[in-house]
Amino acid sequence: MKLLTYSFRWLTSLFLVVAFQAHSQHTQAYTFPSSEVVTLHSKLLNEERKVYVHYPKIDSADGNRRFPVIYVMDGDNHFALLAQYVDYLSRPDVLAMPKTMVVGIPNTQRTRDLTPTSSLLNYEGKPDSSSYKGSGGNEKFLQFIETELIPMIDKKYNTAPYKIFAGHSFGGLSALNCLLTHPDLFDAYIAVSPSLWWDNGYLLRMTDETLKNGSALNKVFFYSDGNEGGRNSFFHKDLLKLDATIAKKKLKGFDYLYKHYATETHMTEPVAAYFDALRFIFKDWEKRR
Amino acid sequence: MKLLTYSFRWLTSLFLVVAFQAHSQHTQAYTFPSSEVVTLHSKLLNEERKVYVHYPKIDSADGNRRFPVIYVMDGDNHFALLAQYVDYLSRPDVLAMPKTMVVGIPNTQRTRDLTPTSSLLNYEGKPDSSSYKGSGGNEKFLQFIETELIPMIDKKYNTAPYKIFAGHSFGGLSALNCLLTHPDLFDAYIAVSPSLWWDNGYLLRMTDETLKNGSALNKVFFYSDGNEGGRNSFFHKDLLKLDATIAKKKLKGFDYLYKHYATETHMTEPVAAYFDALRFIFKDWEKRR
Repeated sequence: MKLLTYSFRWLTSLFLVVAFQAHSQHTQAYTFPSSEVVTLHSKLLNEERKVYVHYPKIDSADGNRRFPVIYVMDGDNHFALLAQYVDYLSRPDVLAMPKTMVVGIPNTQRTRDLTPTSSLLNYEGKPDSSSYKGSGGNEKFLQFIETELIPMIDKKYNTAPYKIFAGHSFGGLSALNCLLTHPDLFDAYIAVSPSLWWDNGYLLRMTDETLKNGSALNKVFFYSDGNEGGRNSFFHKDLLKLDATIAKKKLKGFDYLYKHYATETHMTEPVAAYFDALRFIFKDWEKRR
Repeated sequence: MKLLTYSFRWLTSLFLVVAFQAHSQHTQAYTFPSSEVVTLHSKLLNEERKVYVHYPKIDSADGNRRFPVIYVMDGDNHFALLAQYVDYLSRPDVLAMPKTMVVGIPNTQRTRDLTPTSSLLNYEGKPDSSSYKGSGGNEKFLQFIETELIPMIDKKYNTAPYKIFAGHSFGGLSALNCLLTHPDLFDAYIAVSPSLWWDNGYLLRMTDETLKNGSALNKVFFYSDGNEGGRNSFFHKDLLKLDATIAKKKLKGFDYLYKHYATETHMTEPVAAYFDALRFIFKDWEKRR
């Protein structure tokens, strides 16, 4: 038995030596920045919710430093991209933004959580009960974020008070809805191609009615659209309306930027828009350095 | 002993139950797309070279599909970003480019490998022997890529013939140098803020002298600069010169694009430029779908 083991070891070594010499190469795993999946039970939503958490690489210079947090919806689509942006832009040889945490929120029932009203109408205003049944749960989802998710993250990690809320499409709708209904929850809001068509332009009307001087003070808002059916698309018209509505209010201390990506599709636009949004939100941080 | 083991197990279970109930949450690792580090011995450079290799997530629809490869210099800076872009843009709900491999080449002696001539002059044309001693090894480095690295990658992975060469700053200089001296090595070249100031504008002169109709046929070239000292910076002037030099040649089948990023620094520019470069290189692939 001992001889067999020995022979086997010897043969393995021989094989490794031969393999190594034949290829003159060896392979090991590449380590991406560490991130983790945290599962919490939401009493409000009555379900288990996973979130993806990316924490900055800390070094001795950081001491007990606390980090701002970006909460991004559609976590399966955009978490890894934002984690990469944050790592890149906060590198010591780049320093365009501070080290920042990213919390990605993947969906369980996307339409339920990311729409502000119960509506069965599609973007043409025609009923589509199969797609939009159960819509209108955004208020409850925002309460989950406010009373369950953020407290858990703040307890578990070294977080700074500064928080950003980011979303695309229905997620963009939710970011704008949060700015209108819970403006104090976050410091900056990113709405990439928000689906403003929802419920016959409900959030366009709400923006006009509720966005006021006090609530918008010291808030940052980035919103954008891509080439979603050309210059006459409903997306582009809606975003131009939103931009005009915000501009005419001349809100004090409200820092906003609208960008149109004429060469990007609805799905490629977030790559450009999330980068520009971070650059916009942290422009003063970069200048202060 | 058995009792002790049992008690210990029971206590562990109790502890887990208590811990779980106290926090109502649990944590596991987040899995990033798999990548690996391959080390090979370069006879040409007489040293061990590590490369980072990102391979697309394959599914049953891929069969024995082969994948294009992006080779990117300054691997420690840009590999993870490009791997993220490739994964995002090739997703089935985005489909702006095909699934693609990324090979990141980290540096051992950056100035030696990424400069085309032996020169001690800095960007102002003044001697700086401490920084630039040993420069001028780019031809040898390109030979390493051609005769050692690419054959190893092609042997080890399911690669398609289509190859892209990408670099920033000295890496951009190397991408352009490769286009001029080994045009057949890659199908597309990306030069983000190439350091055209090198050796009194050596590559600007070489571009004018050597870029010809035949060699540039069916090649794609993306080049860019950021706000590197404003509109009068030497970077911007040099890139405008390169663009004018290329334009006046009216080369057949040479597909090129110059982009200026007025709001990006030398270090933030690659985030925007690598994305735009991929969108440009694969614009026809996207349309053909």
